[in-house]
Amino acid sequence: MKKPAITQVPIDSTLAERWSGRAYDPDKVVSRDQVIALLEAARWAPSCFGDQPWRFIVWDKKVNPYAWAKAFDCIVPGNQSWAKDSQLLFLIISDSLFGHNQQPNRWAQYDTGAAAENLCLQAASMGLMAHQMGGFDSTKARVGFGVPEQYTLMAMLSVGYPADQGTLSGEVLEREVAPRKRKELGELFFTEHWGNPVI
Amino acid sequence: MKKPAITQVPIDSTLAERWSGRAYDPDKVVSRDQVIALLEAARWAPSCFGDQPWRFIVWDKKVNPYAWAKAFDCIVPGNQSWAKDSQLLFLIISDSLFGHNQQPNRWAQYDTGAAAENLCLQAASMGLMAHQMGGFDSTKARVGFGVPEQYTLMAMLSVGYPADQGTLSGEVLEREVAPRKRKELGELFFTEHWGNPVI
Repeated sequence: MKKPAITQVPIDSTLAERWSGRAYDPDKVVSRDQVIALLEAARWAPSCFGDQPWRFIVWDKKVNPYAWAKAFDCIVPGNQSWAKDSQLLFLIISDSLFGHNQQPNRWAQYDTGAAAENLCLQAASMGLMAHQMGGFDSTKARVGFGVPEQYTLMAMLSVGYPADQGTLSGEVLEREVAPRKRKELGELFFTEHWGNPVI
Repeated sequence: MKKPAITQVPIDSTLAERWSGRAYDPDKVVSRDQVIALLEAARWAPSCFGDQPWRFIVWDKKVNPYAWAKAFDCIVPGNQSWAKDSQLLFLIISDSLFGHNQQPNRWAQYDTGAAAENLCLQAASMGLMAHQMGGFDSTKARVGFGVPEQYTLMAMLSVGYPADQGTLSGEVLEREVAPRKRKELGELFFTEHWGNPVI
């Protein structure tokens, strides 16, 4: 299902077409090269001092379904209901300290968000669908996967080929077919001073 | 100057070609529609609970050079040396509280980073060059532009058409022509557990 962004002027088609759907095709296989492409896209995001504070852990159901299930088990039930048919799960992690001096990096989460967005856009460009989740058990994930205390667990993320919306039902289907919504440009963006709507 | 990312497998061309250069063309004009496209790209980034915690302030030198100069004055000298020929400046701001319940939003900076990256990618897709800066006086910017305490000032960002690298000199030129570098895939990305290199 396509749900392109509705914009006042055209934008890049990959940016317009990326969206966080829920209907995954359980059979169509994401290749190893596609996994590498997702990671390369994230790798080349910009970061403060070039620190690259993002770290991802990836699970591929087609490679190791038992390991994938352990990651899936960290997701809250509401997200499990649709993420169950995704092939890939990612845990998105942010290094709270700069690598060059071990001082706090106040841009770490900001830069990590950019890297995760690059992954989602690369997915869209390959006909895949990525969906980020804040709803997961970060303590279980930290302990289960050995993430050191210095690092912050930001999100989990599912990737796979999209399926027809008819594979969904109930509330998940309702959310899938609902129009995408955003605040107005003038609520988010200002000209020259806080509070002056840009448009 | 093009400096595409060097990747093991091909990635989306806009993702590969986005980079943070320094040589701006002072004459070639970014249109109003292009400014709106940059903001639309940011607007349609994903966010936790759809909160859209990002707010941007934009200055356009061709519209109001005096206002632009006030924003420019917040940038540290090292960045001013190359940002001087950019047409647009942005201040990237993150709302620390969720809109729906005024509770702390632990994904606010992460989501704001995604929105800023979308803007940078939209710039690249239109042949423009965006460059983010952590080096700016956030207190001066907060006071000068009236940003409420609830919001965190994350970055400033310049946009304009790129110019030939020959317009630069000294250390700025050296940085402009240096190869782009990233950590290896296996340093950033793990399989199934912290510390298992993905490749």
